[in-house]
Amino acid sequence: MDNKLVFEVERLLNEVKNKKPLVHNITNYVTVNDCANILLALGASPIMADDVKEAADITKISSALVINIGTLNERTIESMILAGRKANELNIPVVFDPVGAGASEFRNATTKKILEEIKISVLRGNMSEVKFISGLKSTTKGVDASENDVKTCNDQGIKVARNLANKLNCTVAITGVTDIVSDGERVAILKNGTKMLSNVTGTGCMTSALVGGFCGAGSDYFIAAISGIISMGIAGEIAFEKAGKIGTGSFHIAIIDAISNLDSETIRNMIKIK
Amino acid sequence: MDNKLVFEVERLLNEVKNKKPLVHNITNYVTVNDCANILLALGASPIMADDVKEAADITKISSALVINIGTLNERTIESMILAGRKANELNIPVVFDPVGAGASEFRNATTKKILEEIKISVLRGNMSEVKFISGLKSTTKGVDASENDVKTCNDQGIKVARNLANKLNCTVAITGVTDIVSDGERVAILKNGTKMLSNVTGTGCMTSALVGGFCGAGSDYFIAAISGIISMGIAGEIAFEKAGKIGTGSFHIAIIDAISNLDSETIRNMIKIK
Amino acid sequence: MDNKLVFEVERLLNEVKNKKPLVHNITNYVTVNDCANILLALGASPIMADDVKEAADITKISSALVINIGTLNERTIESMILAGRKANELNIPVVFDPVGAGASEFRNATTKKILEEIKISVLRGNMSEVKFISGLKSTTKGVDASENDVKTCNDQGIKVARNLANKLNCTVAITGVTDIVSDGERVAILKNGTKMLSNVTGTGCMTSALVGGFCGAGSDYFIAAISGIISMGIAGEIAFEKAGKIGTGSFHIAIIDAISNLDSETIRNMIKIK
Repeated sequence: MDNKLVFEVERLLNEVKNKKPLVHNITNYVTVNDCANILLALGASPIMADDVKEAADITKISSALVINIGTLNERTIESMILAGRKANELNIPVVFDPVGAGASEFRNATTKKILEEIKISVLRGNMSEVKFISGLKSTTKGVDASENDVKTCNDQGIKVARNLANKLNCTVAITGVTDIVSDGERVAILKNGTKMLSNVTGTGCMTSALVGGFCGAGSDYFIAAISGIISMGIAGEIAFEKAGKIGTGSFHIAIIDAISNLDSETIRNMIKIK
Repeated sequence: MDNKLVFEVERLLNEVKNKKPLVHNITNYVTVNDCANILLALGASPIMADDVKEAADITKISSALVINIGTLNERTIESMILAGRKANELNIPVVFDPVGAGASEFRNATTKKILEEIKISVLRGNMSEVKFISGLKSTTKGVDASENDVKTCNDQGIKVARNLANKLNCTVAITGVTDIVSDGERVAILKNGTKMLSNVTGTGCMTSALVGGFCGAGSDYFIAAISGIISMGIAGEIAFEKAGKIGTGSFHIAIIDAISNLDSETIRNMIKIK
Repeated sequence: MDNKLVFEVERLLNEVKNKKPLVHNITNYVTVNDCANILLALGASPIMADDVKEAADITKISSALVINIGTLNERTIESMILAGRKANELNIPVVFDPVGAGASEFRNATTKKILEEIKISVLRGNMSEVKFISGLKSTTKGVDASENDVKTCNDQGIKVARNLANKLNCTVAITGVTDIVSDGERVAILKNGTKMLSNVTGTGCMTSALVGGFCGAGSDYFIAAISGIISMGIAGEIAFEKAGKIGTGSFHIAIIDAISNLDSETIRNMIKIK
């Protein structure tokens, strides 16, 4: 266990609670309520705004921008680009969640456009999405990773993450049973979480939102990505303990409860990082 | 009690859990999160996509399409039509939930257009909506059935369902205190549920989503419609038992819990079918 | 404590439960599910419809209209105007929630347009939003009131509310730690609530929805505004008692539970009004 890394995650959590960064989300309408509530639970302040007439203005007053293409539509693509450009101009970090990349030509083209026109700080996706973006052979099952891609072994996964991080000059985070985070040089393997997280919609989106919250409070986006992913993983474990046997509805609520109670001590005790 | 029918419902539930069908939903933004979570709870895999540039592509990779006009807008109507046509072309089942049909000229015209241009597998609505579509005198109160229409007696309701099923060549499901399902020949009267289901938004939408999940795992859409409606009815009873006295928020969560725990034994023990 | 006022709030709650008013909401996609569920929990009947082709038609059959600009977009602004005009024409009360007014030029211009073209019955916002609309110096932090503005003392807040109420000829409600309601003549200071309400997204939107529910059941919109705000405040206190220590997810659900159990006795026992 890398004690310095753990300490940095703990410190960043406290920074979020102190700074309450405003996080601008251009996201999908399926999980948007959860994304807002998880950011509030973390101690950040969410704002959702996706009209082309205000996207850049809202980014301007924010500490981070999260772009999520879960329910992409033509109206919001331009907003994503305008907000992203403004973020780049002002050095505001941008988290990109390429939900369902590989599942339709429209998502593929939009993902390509966003990556070409915006400098991303953290790309967070599942193995199918990240492989697709890397130009590797991937199979996708809608917005979830395919079983084939999930089997991608750690060694190969690390290579995928590191190569894409170098290519895009950003931090790449691949989440799944094991999470892999790399900024091209550093690599972290994260082992928190529970399989039940895949039975609730939006746990991926919420993770990206959390990463946005952490990015808004610090300047090392590799640490911010780890912090967001670890927070969701630990929250999943706590929620599973409390509500796993009750059902996925209660488990869903318990995730948000756990994030709202998350403190540095819990992170220190529960973090599983390599 | 028709034992063969009960057996088929049980079998179909297990098929959903084995096949994890991808279900494409073009639906409203009020209850979309619940629709995604209820499909995951059932064991299916939801995808929401409503842009005209990808609707047909997403349908193409799905096992069922659910169209819900709860918060209809001009942008998504064309997506509904394109997705529906693609579904028809590939013999993918289409569930249609005509939310609020009868409440505005816009909903009426759209309902008409969808029924003219798309071959529906299951139409699920409340008594006001189904009467309206049947060209019968109905009164509507927004998106809920009017009290007058709810009083429609079973015998008359059966006639309405059977006639419309024959006219549209599909399965028609009218949900309410008693649920009536007919494919024009067969008729089932379902008695599961609780009045409290009408105190949570989206229980109708979730039922349609569940029907979509079952349609995606089998080829008898009459059985699939029964399975979806029975699942929600039983979940409502279990949730009422657990949380009915706590309040509608907890009851809402308990519905999703109950679907995530639903198995063939529970169905066998609790199903009320005629 | 003004006993007559308390009695009127109690009476209006019972009126909502008897009349089950249909409340048309043109609102944001972040908290729309909560707005629908809180209205059902109260005993009202929600309908969400925001397309320009049906907005006025839906208002026509409703007892109140709630306009909320939380995730404003160009498509819905015209719907808001058309629905508002229809409401004015038919003397249907209009509640306006200017979410994030002050945060972007687009929201500011839209707020101005709505206030110019529609006669509002109740304007409900936080101190930053209301100060901005009043033309006073305000600072905003996205969709939440800024800490500076929250410190606005009661005496000054009363003046702000009363002046704006007179200027707009409506009831103005400023919600925060203390809530201030004025119709230009009468003033009420409301003290229910808990700080934890600001840790869940949409408690402001839900309050506006509740005000819409009460407006739909009576004709004194000053009393309706007080009733909606007091209901949320009391629900917040009950939810905090039950779930405050569990986390913000459970607290969120407990708010809806509490509204679904709200009766005149609870109001009488818990109301804190000056």
